[in-house]
Amino acid sequence: MARIVMKFGGTSMAGIERIRHVAGLVKREAEAGHQVAVVVSAMAGETDRLIHFCREASSLYDPREYDVVVASGEQVTSGLLAITLTGMGLNARSYMGWQLPIRTSAGHAAALIDGVDADVLERVFDESGIAVIPGFQGLAADGSLATLGRGGSDTSAVAVAAAMKADRCDIYTDVDGVYTTDPRIVPRARKIPVITYEEMLELASVGAKVLQTRSVGLAMREKIPIKVLSSFDDRPGTMVVAENAIEEDMERQVITGIAYEKNEARMTLTAMPDTPAAAASVFGPLAEAGVNVDMIVQSVPRAGERTDLTFTVPATALAQAVDVLERLRSEIGFADILTDTAITKVSIVGVGMRGNPGVAALMFRTLADRGINLLAITTSEIKVSVLIPEDYTELAVRVLHTAYGLDAESEA
Amino acid sequence: MARIVMKFGGTSMAGIERIRHVAGLVKREAEAGHQVAVVVSAMAGETDRLIHFCREASSLYDPREYDVVVASGEQVTSGLLAITLTGMGLNARSYMGWQLPIRTSAGHAAALIDGVDADVLERVFDESGIAVIPGFQGLAADGSLATLGRGGSDTSAVAVAAAMKADRCDIYTDVDGVYTTDPRIVPRARKIPVITYEEMLELASVGAKVLQTRSVGLAMREKIPIKVLSSFDDRPGTMVVAENAIEEDMERQVITGIAYEKNEARMTLTAMPDTPAAAASVFGPLAEAGVNVDMIVQSVPRAGERTDLTFTVPATALAQAVDVLERLRSEIGFADILTDTAITKVSIVGVGMRGNPGVAALMFRTLADRGINLLAITTSEIKVSVLIPEDYTELAVRVLHTAYGLDAESEA
Repeated sequence: MARIVMKFGGTSMAGIERIRHVAGLVKREAEAGHQVAVVVSAMAGETDRLIHFCREASSLYDPREYDVVVASGEQVTSGLLAITLTGMGLNARSYMGWQLPIRTSAGHAAALIDGVDADVLERVFDESGIAVIPGFQGLAADGSLATLGRGGSDTSAVAVAAAMKADRCDIYTDVDGVYTTDPRIVPRARKIPVITYEEMLELASVGAKVLQTRSVGLAMREKIPIKVLSSFDDRPGTMVVAENAIEEDMERQVITGIAYEKNEARMTLTAMPDTPAAAASVFGPLAEAGVNVDMIVQSVPRAGERTDLTFTVPATALAQAVDVLERLRSEIGFADILTDTAITKVSIVGVGMRGNPGVAALMFRTLADRGINLLAITTSEIKVSVLIPEDYTELAVRVLHTAYGLDAESEA
Repeated sequence: MARIVMKFGGTSMAGIERIRHVAGLVKREAEAGHQVAVVVSAMAGETDRLIHFCREASSLYDPREYDVVVASGEQVTSGLLAITLTGMGLNARSYMGWQLPIRTSAGHAAALIDGVDADVLERVFDESGIAVIPGFQGLAADGSLATLGRGGSDTSAVAVAAAMKADRCDIYTDVDGVYTTDPRIVPRARKIPVITYEEMLELASVGAKVLQTRSVGLAMREKIPIKVLSSFDDRPGTMVVAENAIEEDMERQVITGIAYEKNEARMTLTAMPDTPAAAASVFGPLAEAGVNVDMIVQSVPRAGERTDLTFTVPATALAQAVDVLERLRSEIGFADILTDTAITKVSIVGVGMRGNPGVAALMFRTLADRGINLLAITTSEIKVSVLIPEDYTELAVRVLHTAYGLDAESEA
């Protein structure tokens, strides 16, 4: 007997026929003798419909009332799944975020989970019951409903798993696992059977949209193994686990996956004063404005001369970043702001690159061989990222996938 | 300054444009200095959509989980109205049934309101705030969501009004008041400016679908004046009040309104034994089966002979009633069951008929003059009902409306 959280996303819950299929998956685990809590998303499209209502009601919608409106989507699917399971003869019952409760911060529309009370769940399991829990919602300390922000249901599932000390958190989605790269670009992309939390975090933050980043970070802290799999077929998915949980003799690639992010923008401030305070005068105000700066490149000037400062920000934050810096132009002392949104960040990720000094060199050589310009480079312990012209994105991902031996024998 | 509950039905809340109009009506009362609580229904059609989901999920849907699903409709409109009011600069906040709370019985899908805690509302009014409350839902003693059954939002509004000791409960709907009869049948039907609770109850139970019967009964017990008016125009509506609140010198009709109910069925048990226990042997089992028996006529037999027993039941319960009685045929001792659904109950209602003995006689004479057969007659203190062949419904209502002087000077 194991304790399992099963989480189903919006496409898995989109309509009664799919909910019935989900109920069948839950029934299978329950009948295998497992203790099961199910966390569900709203029907695909429903949250967007509700958000649209809120925006129509007032462009400056009150986030607290926004939460009241959008939390209803998961309430509906929780009730419907409980009805379906009960109709199959199972002992199932829904528990809203305020009923368990799932306690959150007061940050409406983007609340953080403070904790999940497991008392109700323990009672449910004592009575051989199945708990159905809406994702994405919780109860703030002042007694109001709060939601976690888009994609928050994955985080709800991991938080519930941590509270009930689950052996596993199964995240059912519309893809059947995590791939070495985007199969739309590389048909020979392979499903990754096992990946570490750290690798998953790097892949998620650079574009692999399978799991919400927050949920992976929480699972890592709480040591909850995650399994990503499809509710639409029965194939084995991808396990996301701690590095020490992967067996030593398991055959591992040096590189686990290749990600890309097109929604980046490059900014260059020309003729910056070459003083120690210059960088702080730029990045301080950007951080205060909530703009996330990623890759930073500073050209080395000749002594006493001025220099260029280049960095990337999310494309959606570009206008704001320009606005912030223009207002500080004389204070910072740059000449011009140059911007470019026709760029892509490509990253290779893998715990196997530790102690493999040739890994980054292979990346640079492979791209250089195809005449692809590297506009910036950053590295971390398990990741190397390069900035390239957007037109070369697909070519770069494809040649790197081959160079690191990731190609499957046949197309997916 | 007055304390007012404003209740808006599904057509008034159907979409953001209408919700914005509703917010304007609320703003007007708030700016007049009144303390306002707003009770809202789900968007028109939404509750039906949610019920359809539940039925699809399982034909024998769990009523407790059904409540979780259908309560979401009012949650959405409450949040959206609060967003809209806040966007207009008003201090508005939604409070779900479980947050106030509105305490209910455990009878899921048809719960009764046990009480409404006014503490939160008093605090809101102290801070010059507006409370927006979903109708139709509450919190059962075991901590689960419960709904009141269709049309329950009117009852929620009156219960909130009672808890906050409101001066008035304004029910905004898609008609602009209570009419002397159905204007589709009698174009010269008149809007009734003031009606007593008792008259409203009689009109509601015989077909006037403006207010839920339960809400009128509750308002009568709690002495809450109700005002029925349209959210779509600004004309004065109908006040529903206690009889002693109507001024003596106000010009009153003897008859306040004329109602009809086509969804009745007549049953006749032929050759019943003429014993004191015979009626009990019929109506006891029907009551146990939940069948509501209305008009009863027993022909007077010659001594020692058998007799016919005629009564009406709702047309929707006819099959069940026949089934119950067929199984008891030998025990009760009747010969045959005759049924007829082509009948209508027509009622005249008015507190003014008290001490006016000629009122019923005028009804019988008026109908007889037109050759309309009376199949059964029942009377109460403020109502006379007759059963007639369905084909004569419109004619009967029209001639009675004229006979009692209810015709307006011009068509509506």
